[in-house]
Amino acid sequence: MSERNRVVERLDELGRIGRYEHGIDRPLASSQERQARALFASWARASEFSIAQDVVGNLFARRDGSDPTRKPILVGSHLDTVKTGGAYDGAYGVVGALCALELLQARGTATTHPIEAVAWAGEEGSRFPLGCLGSSVFTGLCAASYALDLTDEDGVTLRAALAAPQTGLLDLPLRANADVAGYLELHVEQGPILEDAGVVLGVVTAIAGQRRLRAIVDGVSGHAGTVPMAMRADALCAASELVLALERAAREQGDAVATVGRTIVEPNGTNVVPGRVTFSLDLRSPDDAKLDAIEAAFARAVEDVEKRRGVSIGIESFEKRPPTPMTPMLRDAIHRAIASLGQRALDVPSGAGHDAMSLGKVVPTAMLFVPSIGGRSHVTQERTADADLVLGVDALAAAIVQADATLSER
Amino acid sequence: MSERNRVVERLDELGRIGRYEHGIDRPLASSQERQARALFASWARASEFSIAQDVVGNLFARRDGSDPTRKPILVGSHLDTVKTGGAYDGAYGVVGALCALELLQARGTATTHPIEAVAWAGEEGSRFPLGCLGSSVFTGLCAASYALDLTDEDGVTLRAALAAPQTGLLDLPLRANADVAGYLELHVEQGPILEDAGVVLGVVTAIAGQRRLRAIVDGVSGHAGTVPMAMRADALCAASELVLALERAAREQGDAVATVGRTIVEPNGTNVVPGRVTFSLDLRSPDDAKLDAIEAAFARAVEDVEKRRGVSIGIESFEKRPPTPMTPMLRDAIHRAIASLGQRALDVPSGAGHDAMSLGKVVPTAMLFVPSIGGRSHVTQERTADADLVLGVDALAAAIVQADATLSER
Repeated sequence: MSERNRVVERLDELGRIGRYEHGIDRPLASSQERQARALFASWARASEFSIAQDVVGNLFARRDGSDPTRKPILVGSHLDTVKTGGAYDGAYGVVGALCALELLQARGTATTHPIEAVAWAGEEGSRFPLGCLGSSVFTGLCAASYALDLTDEDGVTLRAALAAPQTGLLDLPLRANADVAGYLELHVEQGPILEDAGVVLGVVTAIAGQRRLRAIVDGVSGHAGTVPMAMRADALCAASELVLALERAAREQGDAVATVGRTIVEPNGTNVVPGRVTFSLDLRSPDDAKLDAIEAAFARAVEDVEKRRGVSIGIESFEKRPPTPMTPMLRDAIHRAIASLGQRALDVPSGAGHDAMSLGKVVPTAMLFVPSIGGRSHVTQERTADADLVLGVDALAAAIVQADATLSER
Repeated sequence: MSERNRVVERLDELGRIGRYEHGIDRPLASSQERQARALFASWARASEFSIAQDVVGNLFARRDGSDPTRKPILVGSHLDTVKTGGAYDGAYGVVGALCALELLQARGTATTHPIEAVAWAGEEGSRFPLGCLGSSVFTGLCAASYALDLTDEDGVTLRAALAAPQTGLLDLPLRANADVAGYLELHVEQGPILEDAGVVLGVVTAIAGQRRLRAIVDGVSGHAGTVPMAMRADALCAASELVLALERAAREQGDAVATVGRTIVEPNGTNVVPGRVTFSLDLRSPDDAKLDAIEAAFARAVEDVEKRRGVSIGIESFEKRPPTPMTPMLRDAIHRAIASLGQRALDVPSGAGHDAMSLGKVVPTAMLFVPSIGGRSHVTQERTADADLVLGVDALAAAIVQADATLSER
């Protein structure tokens, strides 16, 4: 097996773990996800990297640097999936990090810093109710005890799952977390921008800020045959105006997205004028000011619709996460690395969240994207072309070298 | 008990049969609905009207006329309810018919035609899947054997239910159906028009035609964070435009209503761009041409949205019921009756369906409405003021006299 095809073959092997008819289901500290972690550990051992884990199940495969006083540069992503996940989201960044270390090893390329390929525990939050769990604990954004006491739907704690032989890696050495010098993450884009531009390598500018809200529109339910149009307060017609107002606001801002993904109509009978519609709002932008502007435009639409339609509309805001800009010196390092390969790069935002959000709060952090075919992600049809997977690993290896140099100058 | 309060007291008594926390549940040939039919029969017997039933459980309480060669005029409605029904829909028309006959009896008012107060079996279609079941069989629009072989959700046939002692009236004489001279039906409006106009008595112009359709909007599902607005084919945004286009079309036509009552969004995740939206359309108007115009306007909107948004939209039409105009000479008879009481009358359409749709296809037919408080119906809050219930019976008694005279001239 050549170094260049290894990433593809390993992703195939990982992608069989947890696969069922609707995709891949590999939640944190399940027997499937344990199998994925064990596979990562066995690959790392075979390449003679030292392997260790921390208290929440983050895995670290270490290649030493030339300067023993340096803190490590971490490179990684996650091995868990959503319930209908694909083979690349997360897994590519973990396997890619390991393959990049092996490329450097094979070429005899030394780095000043130690480089560690990391598999963060539980980025998706699909079993225990906390996204970016492992990286949040690692960076101190969340206490380990809080994460370990989280329970899944069956009442099992993460602590118990990691201590059980079927779901924990009991033979791996445990280590305390130390400071790191920087963080790189390779990931599939999960969107259509790179494919659309015909560019394989994307350098992330920022991970979008995200706001989540819920709107409840209360109108007056009634008989679909007997209430004249002029006397209605139809909650669905009112909600439809708001859905379109939100779309318009996001389009007008640009560099932002807004989505009504979930809608519940009550009573939802074919012959009943809808009395209540509850819907979700998901707003994202790398620019917080744009999120403010979209929220303000939506609030104006709410006021207008309330007045005009005789409905009452309640808005509840339950998540407001600021954007995470990527560190310019590491973005530059990735650009230099891509240029050194004679490749083009495109600056792109990340609309999805990543472990780089946690790391970006405490150390220099940057991300590298490869295209997702059709922009599809979190579905069984999630795909990235083999050649793009291979090029991404090449670029990551080059980026590690550039980042090592950049961070050594500090 | 005075004659004038009898209708209110009887509706109270009927309204206790089948009552639970969400209203009244009295499906055809249930033990509750049997109890209601038995009560009707006992009231009729107490007033010395002859009582009989037909093969599907329609009940007839007869007051003879002066001319034994005349066919009867039928006056009635139904005793069954929807699952969360109120105390007046249907029951008022049955009890009101009986009370009107008793008024004529008490006043010694003879009619030329025999007059029969009727309780039609199963108007709501809430147990066996056929609306206006009893009146459809009576008028020959549906074969008795077809109706009797219908099964409920537990596989019980109407035939079996009517033959069981807990749910059938086994002691009542069975009679074959004969021709009738005309039909009158008293009903609560189930809408807000009379209340809004401050008029108690409504004369129905026509029972609205109804069209039921289903629209399926297929867009492209995607990650709510990663797919730029300009690259989306959001099925919910497309559906929202169509909901509003339908509303606009109905408003522009006037004398018509159109409702999107049921909406299913897929996958309906807060962080997923909707890939498919399925929604119901319910169009009603006393004027078929207006229904054509609304459908045409909706079809133009579909074409426009498909083109502009890159979604594909399928429309399925699965019910197309023409309007049932009420018979002018009986409408006039009701107007004269109301005038004879010194009351105002308002011509109103009926947006809801009634047994008068079946009768209206074969004999002269007209309907009389009283107001529904807040226009509410098919809910536990369904109410009509006591004074309005009493006035409605007075008007019905007068209308019977006028209809008897009018039909005698033929």
